[in-house]
Amino acid sequence: MAEVAASWFNARSLLDGAELKEIYQHERPEDDGWLYPEQVIAHGQSTESTVTIPDELRYRYAEVGRPTPLTRATALERHLGTSCQIWLKREDLLPNGSFKITSALPQAHYGAAEGRRSVVTETGAGQTGVAAALASCLSGLACEVFMVRSSFDDKPLRRRLMEAYGAVVHASPSDTTAAGRRFLERGEEAGSIAMATSEVFDVLRGREDGMNIAGSLLDFTLLYASLIGIETVDQLRAVGVDPDVAIGCVGGGSSFGGFAFPLLDAFPEAEIVAVESASIPTLTAGRYVFDHPDGEGDAPPIKMYSLGFDYRPPPMHASGLRYHAASPLVSAFVHSGRMKAEAYDEPEAMEAGLLLARLQGLVISPESTYTLLAAIRRAEQAGPGRAIVALVTGSGHLDLDAYGRFLTPA
Amino acid sequence: MAEVAASWFNARSLLDGAELKEIYQHERPEDDGWLYPEQVIAHGQSTESTVTIPDELRYRYAEVGRPTPLTRATALERHLGTSCQIWLKREDLLPNGSFKITSALPQAHYGAAEGRRSVVTETGAGQTGVAAALASCLSGLACEVFMVRSSFDDKPLRRRLMEAYGAVVHASPSDTTAAGRRFLERGEEAGSIAMATSEVFDVLRGREDGMNIAGSLLDFTLLYASLIGIETVDQLRAVGVDPDVAIGCVGGGSSFGGFAFPLLDAFPEAEIVAVESASIPTLTAGRYVFDHPDGEGDAPPIKMYSLGFDYRPPPMHASGLRYHAASPLVSAFVHSGRMKAEAYDEPEAMEAGLLLARLQGLVISPESTYTLLAAIRRAEQAGPGRAIVALVTGSGHLDLDAYGRFLTPA
Repeated sequence: MAEVAASWFNARSLLDGAELKEIYQHERPEDDGWLYPEQVIAHGQSTESTVTIPDELRYRYAEVGRPTPLTRATALERHLGTSCQIWLKREDLLPNGSFKITSALPQAHYGAAEGRRSVVTETGAGQTGVAAALASCLSGLACEVFMVRSSFDDKPLRRRLMEAYGAVVHASPSDTTAAGRRFLERGEEAGSIAMATSEVFDVLRGREDGMNIAGSLLDFTLLYASLIGIETVDQLRAVGVDPDVAIGCVGGGSSFGGFAFPLLDAFPEAEIVAVESASIPTLTAGRYVFDHPDGEGDAPPIKMYSLGFDYRPPPMHASGLRYHAASPLVSAFVHSGRMKAEAYDEPEAMEAGLLLARLQGLVISPESTYTLLAAIRRAEQAGPGRAIVALVTGSGHLDLDAYGRFLTPA
Repeated sequence: MAEVAASWFNARSLLDGAELKEIYQHERPEDDGWLYPEQVIAHGQSTESTVTIPDELRYRYAEVGRPTPLTRATALERHLGTSCQIWLKREDLLPNGSFKITSALPQAHYGAAEGRRSVVTETGAGQTGVAAALASCLSGLACEVFMVRSSFDDKPLRRRLMEAYGAVVHASPSDTTAAGRRFLERGEEAGSIAMATSEVFDVLRGREDGMNIAGSLLDFTLLYASLIGIETVDQLRAVGVDPDVAIGCVGGGSSFGGFAFPLLDAFPEAEIVAVESASIPTLTAGRYVFDHPDGEGDAPPIKMYSLGFDYRPPPMHASGLRYHAASPLVSAFVHSGRMKAEAYDEPEAMEAGLLLARLQGLVISPESTYTLLAAIRRAEQAGPGRAIVALVTGSGHLDLDAYGRFLTPA
């Protein structure tokens, strides 16, 4: 059995007093206990530098495939003719297809321990829903997922994966909730994450032993995802590599935060780069303000880079990056200059993804192709012998329709 | 970089003189050099116990993810309440989604070295086509795949994966070959492997620098696949486990042979079990005869268990098991009693697959669910403390439609 880290790494501990005061001056959306388990909320509020992982949970992490490998993209290096090393942290190898089980697992675990009996959650392209479904069945919780109808129709296999994990999946808007019926009456059949969230709230308001599983953004999702970075630090040390650059993509920011903060702590000289899509340039063109995390302006505002809660992102292959804001913790570090942000265009990113596929077979999630593109640019421009570590957030196998649409536009 | 074995293991070396004489008394389908590279044919004919893997190819194997992990299914063991250990050899973690790249890679490599410039191959559900597409682009060969039209329509993502690897994929029967046009004129739109093979032959007859990539059955496919078993032996020894039982499923027999022969050699006391579907009971109800490997009776007959070349298997989720015969090498060992064969029903197998998914997230190929079911039955019935090693031939992510149809029959 692989060795899973004994503690999560708490990025809050890296903030100074003034930052903490500024960021946490208002009530936080997650602090209301009806949605999340008390232990989860307490973990999110902790300012300790580490939070102990109970042995039972470490065992569960190992059973779903943590630690994930760190592999070197030697075929890509050879093709580029670079003397730089390009290392990939391989969250694509998790059985649910993405890093997201890393945060979902403890949420379901603590929920079950506190007597919650069911999970009700929303999902867009489906990665969050798949992780919630798996985490739920591992902890003996029932699971219902409201999946944005356009994805429900376009991504049948991701829905099937949730069902394989025992979840009940509704196309949202659905006729099973009052909110869903209102949206349907207004003719809004295609749905959106905001509508799916309204349906989830409708169900959970009437169910005392229900809970939500958060997919990203909130501090506790970054805390739990920190295993990604902790493992990467250990794995780099095991091969004697001091990274010069660490790169990850940012949608809500949980994979990036989970990856980047332990690296920032362990390798303070490394350049840490958050990559986003030029189609939704939250960190590079957004404002650092208190804004609503939801699309309707109902949830309490939090301090973060945002394009505005009413911003409607364009359709894109990397649907996991289609979010108007970015995690408060990541935002604070970009704002203070301790992390950089860069935006790239999707066609170049997808080309980079195809290049990797054809050089070593690896088909990564469309979101991660942006990270790969940034890594390739660095390898082309950086001095000789640099070490670049890039986060692959998930597999692209269930997003092959996106690669197909890119190769053969309709 | 992971350490790849220095040699393949040659199962022919385990046959005695009488068996060799009996099995190889006639010309073999693969011995005609127009379809396969000379080096590949020579490897298939070798009776040496090992065949050296050139360093360049070892490096390529490592770049596509060999060795694959051997992991223990502890959540499954706990659920069963067994003291047996259940080990899984994880071919699902290869980037193409199955073990098949293990045989395709050397075929393309030697073809390119001998001046072949393009691969033309047939595929049913797509695993062979995907591996051929990846192996081709890694060796700089163009690749065309004729994919049985019913799968082409039903499995769009597997087609997309071939295209991501740069292959041109035709729905077969196609209007690009004379054979295809004949089938279409006769109204045989749904296609079959036999028809797709006829189209491949049509193209290759007119192309001197073209070649085929064999997916299974032929001796050299088992030789190249022997890395699966060699790695498993090393990995079991590394954890100090002497397996009591080794189990794999048999379609054509290349994954099973590649897995089982090195284990048989290293652990002569172990029980070696070939698992098949009761819907197509080649090894358990077929005859051990000289029969045609193709569906039309055109190819030279070979000695193997067969249900008859004109047997038309029923539709099933585990489409990789839908073959009327089994590899001559595997057949010889089942015939002599050195390996066992067992047949299982598909609904129980798919239930076993769902159980594993819900216990540790792992969604395996429908073919491998038969193996899993056999492993579970052994764990339930075997004496305490036995070690069972089961081969997972591929990921089920691109077969989630099969899981879906099983969960929700039309």
